[in-house]
Amino acid sequence: MTTDVATRWLTDAEQKVWRAYLLGSARLSERMDAHLRQFGIDLPEYDILVALSETPERRLRMSDLADAVHQSRSRLTHTVARMEADELVERVNCPTDRRGVWASLTDHGLELLETAAPTHVELVRRNFVEVAPAADYEAVGRVFSAIIALETTKS
Amino acid sequence: MTTDVATRWLTDAEQKVWRAYLLGSARLSERMDAHLRQFGIDLPEYDILVALSETPERRLRMSDLADAVHQSRSRLTHTVARMEADELVERVNCPTDRRGVWASLTDHGLELLETAAPTHVELVRRNFVEVAPAADYEAVGRVFSAIIALETTKS
Repeated sequence: MTTDVATRWLTDAEQKVWRAYLLGSARLSERMDAHLRQFGIDLPEYDILVALSETPERRLRMSDLADAVHQSRSRLTHTVARMEADELVERVNCPTDRRGVWASLTDHGLELLETAAPTHVELVRRNFVEVAPAADYEAVGRVFSAIIALETTKS
Repeated sequence: MTTDVATRWLTDAEQKVWRAYLLGSARLSERMDAHLRQFGIDLPEYDILVALSETPERRLRMSDLADAVHQSRSRLTHTVARMEADELVERVNCPTDRRGVWASLTDHGLELLETAAPTHVELVRRNFVEVAPAADYEAVGRVFSAIIALETTKS
């Protein structure tokens, strides 16, 4: 990024959206976390349970799990260790894959997910999916998909 | 929230947007934080500098600052203490307001903000404002404004 060109400051309208996003996304995270706290987990941990539950054998290589959820490898290692202490997941060495450690969903982890999921999903609906017209929600999908896609085209 | 009604699971399309948001917002935060780290601050700290810089006397009561930025009172207290150690802000007792502590922007804090702002704003443009058509960006504003507005109508 060069700094020798004139700064393209945000317009008032652009800034209003950026700030609404910063504040709204913080509020949304707080609400989701507050709900999941009663189950002893937070949103990143919930997402790990979901990702593991969706595989045929309820397990993923740690590197694939890091890709599936929005966490860095180092943060994921820390999170999974905590979840293992709570007996929600197990770390196992896969006999057919000497390279890496797998995270495996325990029966207890699956039960917790099944208990938390209905009210979690209802909260996602009320606090995100249905707060605005469906066309606006679809636009949100396009914007954040584009943000993700930038990953591969710029560092 | 009642649990005796059938769960309204997300459709595949709705889930795709929710996941794009979770992943995209995490990536966006990482990119903004990575840039600000070279100035020794993160995005919440940057927002505090901005909020203070926009007041006539470059200071805000802590309770008003908490409202202005997306942080809880307890987290804000912690963040401001750290920023005070870095001499970016000062906490002062206002003589005309015996009730509370104010956060005041230092000259050093203002200088750091002015140094970081041009490239920060350019990153916001490239990674958020301009990743999709303007109409989609405006829709994002409506969705997150609606999320914030829920605050007052439901607990």
